[in-house]
Amino acid sequence: MEQKKRTEIAELGEFGLIEKLMGTVGDDAVETSSNLVSTDLLLEGVDFDLSYFPLKHLGYKAVTVGVSDILAMNGVPRKVLLGIGVSAKSGIEDLEELYEGVRTACAELGVELAGGDTSASVNGLVLSITALGDANNPVKRSGAAMNDLICITGDLGAAYMGLHLLEREKRAFAGHEAPQPDFEGHEYLLERWLRPRARLDVIESLREAEIVPTSMIDLSDGLASDLLHICRSSECGARIYLERIPIARQTHAMAEELHADPVVAALNGGGDYELLFTVPLSMQEQVMRMGGIDIIGHITPATAGAILVTPDGSEIPITSINN
Amino acid sequence: MEQKKRTEIAELGEFGLIEKLMGTVGDDAVETSSNLVSTDLLLEGVDFDLSYFPLKHLGYKAVTVGVSDILAMNGVPRKVLLGIGVSAKSGIEDLEELYEGVRTACAELGVELAGGDTSASVNGLVLSITALGDANNPVKRSGAAMNDLICITGDLGAAYMGLHLLEREKRAFAGHEAPQPDFEGHEYLLERWLRPRARLDVIESLREAEIVPTSMIDLSDGLASDLLHICRSSECGARIYLERIPIARQTHAMAEELHADPVVAALNGGGDYELLFTVPLSMQEQVMRMGGIDIIGHITPATAGAILVTPDGSEIPITSINN
Repeated sequence: MEQKKRTEIAELGEFGLIEKLMGTVGDDAVETSSNLVSTDLLLEGVDFDLSYFPLKHLGYKAVTVGVSDILAMNGVPRKVLLGIGVSAKSGIEDLEELYEGVRTACAELGVELAGGDTSASVNGLVLSITALGDANNPVKRSGAAMNDLICITGDLGAAYMGLHLLEREKRAFAGHEAPQPDFEGHEYLLERWLRPRARLDVIESLREAEIVPTSMIDLSDGLASDLLHICRSSECGARIYLERIPIARQTHAMAEELHADPVVAALNGGGDYELLFTVPLSMQEQVMRMGGIDIIGHITPATAGAILVTPDGSEIPITSINN
Repeated sequence: MEQKKRTEIAELGEFGLIEKLMGTVGDDAVETSSNLVSTDLLLEGVDFDLSYFPLKHLGYKAVTVGVSDILAMNGVPRKVLLGIGVSAKSGIEDLEELYEGVRTACAELGVELAGGDTSASVNGLVLSITALGDANNPVKRSGAAMNDLICITGDLGAAYMGLHLLEREKRAFAGHEAPQPDFEGHEYLLERWLRPRARLDVIESLREAEIVPTSMIDLSDGLASDLLHICRSSECGARIYLERIPIARQTHAMAEELHADPVVAALNGGGDYELLFTVPLSMQEQVMRMGGIDIIGHITPATAGAILVTPDGSEIPITSINN
């Protein structure tokens, strides 16, 4: 079977493969009228584990990861280009599954899958995503100003807990021929890791509410790391309150089960693809009216640093393993 | 030493690393006013072998590969974004070397290194290149028309012969502690594989000569495969003449030494990053006045197929291992 799959890809060749999956062989470059572009890499063994990561979800997530960078600049995503390094382990069915996820995400986001590049890989599956989008006045990381409110969409730490649950079940069933992990009740956590949604809805809500954030970033690396990016780019400090960090019930429950700290998951877990943004203090009411947004703190002078305030009033300097 | 290098990267972290190499941590996406975008992947073990590929050259080549796609649409390259998956084998010095090559190529081409994404890789070095550029009327693969002349820049097959020479020396010195391969006299071939130049000069010459090709593609996969792309997109056939295919003296000599066929290298070798384009028959004189361009044949009806005519008049259908 494995051998048969390999032959199929070899027979089709690179261009036959692209044509089959994307419908057409394009030109060397793709035409665009967008003013924003981003690029991301997803690597097997680092960003995903194919032993439990369904390829359909992986394709979906790749689009989320790419598009999220456009959203983080208050942009509307338009096109994605996908580069794939395919190992011999993968058959055409696998790639079709991957593309099905890519197309699903593109359809949900109103984004065009505009092109790409397929090549052989001897070292596992490699995905590169180039995303294009439009913003009249792109929101940067550098615009946060004193007393601005620090806002968060959705909830944090769920993706990280989903990952840890999957890793635990993988270890538990290592060597089993037909593993039957029990994920019942944990669908939310799994979906947050395997199939995170890009928050286009938030960008649309911000526009409707006529709110232009002063700075924004997507939470790909974790709240700590991403907040420090804002602080560094904006040359400011930040003061956030632990009890205001939005963490889902399921995340708390799983953290307890795994003897983990849900706050650490929120701060350093990453993979949530929620948005972190700042707005002037005067916009507090508008932001609260939007719904689904939590105000977790405010911007302070650079000299004050980035501080997490615990419920008992203790002040913990925010650091990040990624910074 | 190896251990020390690894620690250094771990200490700097992803963002420290990007900042050190690129000078600044940017935003999630990069602003652009370009109307062309392309994406390419370069994978260790497939596209390059680090046992003999200097990282400085690899960085240079990555830019060439990306920019070449923009040139192939008659575009002027403006920016590149580089995604890097770094394995633990690589130290900061290695990445600095890679970036030195990237910066050299960018400077030569007047292109800005605008951003990127760095992540860990457990499976060797991964490079993704996103190139941006401008063209008022992008030249596509689909515009070739009956009787158009088929033109080639530079010479073909040299990169492939350079690769084979490097592979031969690698085998010859396998197990040697301090291999001393003798590359004297073969600098041209090595440079064509390790450090190919993007033909921005040709795009500029075409503009000066007021020649707009009817179709164009860069020779990344080899003449056969890339000509078939033009034929397929333009729904036409092609007739090219073997003795007109430009092959350098050094390529002929090395082919003889390696008992290889230089025409096969030109047709299927790839990696030359020269340009293949078509122009109306009426432009023959202008093209010849440009210099450095060879007219190797002409476009025929689709029903005639793609044909290579040998000096004795035999007609060989062109096929490609990649199609």
